[in-house]
Amino acid sequence: MGENPRKLASIRKIVTLTRERLRYAVVGTGALGGLYGARLARKGHSVAFLTRRDGEVLRSRGLTIRDSTGEWTLTDVAAYDRVDEMPPVDVAIVALKTTQNHLLETLLPPLLGSTGIALMLQNGLDVEAQAAAVLGRDRVVGGVCFLCAAKVAPGLIHHIDYGKIILGDYGKGYGPRGITERLRRIARDFEAADLEIELCEDLLLARWRKLAWNVPFNGLSVVLDAATDELMADGAARSLIDALMVEVTQGAAACGRELTAAFLAELMALTETMPPYKTSMKLDFDGRRPLEVEAIVGAPLRMAAARGVALPQMEMLYRQLKFLDARNVGSVIQ
Amino acid sequence: MGENPRKLASIRKIVTLTRERLRYAVVGTGALGGLYGARLARKGHSVAFLTRRDGEVLRSRGLTIRDSTGEWTLTDVAAYDRVDEMPPVDVAIVALKTTQNHLLETLLPPLLGSTGIALMLQNGLDVEAQAAAVLGRDRVVGGVCFLCAAKVAPGLIHHIDYGKIILGDYGKGYGPRGITERLRRIARDFEAADLEIELCEDLLLARWRKLAWNVPFNGLSVVLDAATDELMADGAARSLIDALMVEVTQGAAACGRELTAAFLAELMALTETMPPYKTSMKLDFDGRRPLEVEAIVGAPLRMAAARGVALPQMEMLYRQLKFLDARNVGSVIQ
Repeated sequence: MGENPRKLASIRKIVTLTRERLRYAVVGTGALGGLYGARLARKGHSVAFLTRRDGEVLRSRGLTIRDSTGEWTLTDVAAYDRVDEMPPVDVAIVALKTTQNHLLETLLPPLLGSTGIALMLQNGLDVEAQAAAVLGRDRVVGGVCFLCAAKVAPGLIHHIDYGKIILGDYGKGYGPRGITERLRRIARDFEAADLEIELCEDLLLARWRKLAWNVPFNGLSVVLDAATDELMADGAARSLIDALMVEVTQGAAACGRELTAAFLAELMALTETMPPYKTSMKLDFDGRRPLEVEAIVGAPLRMAAARGVALPQMEMLYRQLKFLDARNVGSVIQ
Repeated sequence: MGENPRKLASIRKIVTLTRERLRYAVVGTGALGGLYGARLARKGHSVAFLTRRDGEVLRSRGLTIRDSTGEWTLTDVAAYDRVDEMPPVDVAIVALKTTQNHLLETLLPPLLGSTGIALMLQNGLDVEAQAAAVLGRDRVVGGVCFLCAAKVAPGLIHHIDYGKIILGDYGKGYGPRGITERLRRIARDFEAADLEIELCEDLLLARWRKLAWNVPFNGLSVVLDAATDELMADGAARSLIDALMVEVTQGAAACGRELTAAFLAELMALTETMPPYKTSMKLDFDGRRPLEVEAIVGAPLRMAAARGVALPQMEMLYRQLKFLDARNVGSVIQ
């Protein structure tokens, strides 16, 4: 009834998840991948963990999650150092830092064969397109995570706060796809594993909404060497945050997505109540790891620019971060 | 012939310097004031030096200038700790950091009586207006200095490089005043003291030209914790410099002053040939001294804004510097 037949045709092409019990892989067993994967595995799901350095520890001592209520350990962890030793799966939870996304081409095809799908639980924008370039655009879904967690040692993850995932399906050009059946299947598994899930009809909107926080706070925390509470407490820094949020809003608008003033006010109010917090980009910077500048600042800038919208303060932030990142990582003795 | 009678009337109000041998005071005996004052005193001019902390050293051991050719010491330095002990003078060379300009009100009237003039050898924009607010607008001239020097100890100044002063007269609203007779008189004294002088008809243009360097290099050196050579060597930092120079050019244009592309290219070429250089703002920052943010970034921003021109990247730089300055100075144990 009034539906566009072309749109329906496009939706019919979506790969469905038909297996009764989905098999998962975690690609990148850091704090986020480790935590979500461990929760799924605890509920009896088959979860294969790909890890660059922690395989031996995970296999011998398991994966321990520490939170405010205590500690629990997942034993018998199916941890792998190489993707070609892993079993095929239905869903690859991609939890790599986006700075590693050049590896998607190598990692995803052996895991997913011709029918598995990638669930992109990464920061920033356009990460789904990177997976789609490898798998085809109808084999990708995305998730926007609100998690505060840190890997404090190999095999030990500290779950500090939050944890919600907003799941959204992905299709050509980030067009809204509605709530698809495969999204519901994944959501059921995650919810059964005590993970908070929200389904969204428009993944691009969810990503822009998160950028409204990530662009100012991740960016400024590195450039100004400051935690969130310091930024919130200073008038000049507040003006910087506001101005960057306005530009993110303009970027979203260029893509036909609206970030309302009420939403931005809510973000600020939420941040007011947060404890002093080092952003993920600041943690990466202090750890001399490459920054997710391209996913968090570069990709939204380019998406807006492609629609004729210039965002001068985000551009300045981008260049400052590129300079600092190059010097920071370049100065590590490898 | 075709001259505006009102303009002539205004010029006639300019205070002239009639004394045969001008008496000078240096207000703020740092590297710049100390060096220029010592050169004038060496040629027999009466120069009274106001200093906050170095009076005792200057009176007992003199003022030593070290440069590439060696060292020379000015003995019998007329150094004062308090302005009310100083003799009246014809020209007060104001070489305070602009962050001290709230003192002009206290310092200038006793020194200059009703006829002396202030020569503002400070960074940034609008410093003449601050002196004019105390003295009246026809008792102020300005100078834009290109000097690389540092006070390495009380009574010891290292003259590293350069030293030219561009002198320009000041009147209402920074309107071009041409080359006035009082400007020529000061220029003759400075030149006789082996100082390089250029006379300019339009002080505001000279100040905007210097800002084209000072805004990007002073600002970014602090925000990115980098010397000039590091900024010049990195592509992202070069883009930041270029973008900020474009905005300074827009600010100048808003004030009816043109900075040509050829001039900007020349600035960059000059900077290429400079040795690695810590900007004055970076030296202040590292020394935990207040930054000249208002004079160098705030004042040009406000001048452009008053003419309806927004400069978003300079505004961002301004706010970043305000945040860093407040934290830097606030953390000093006084």
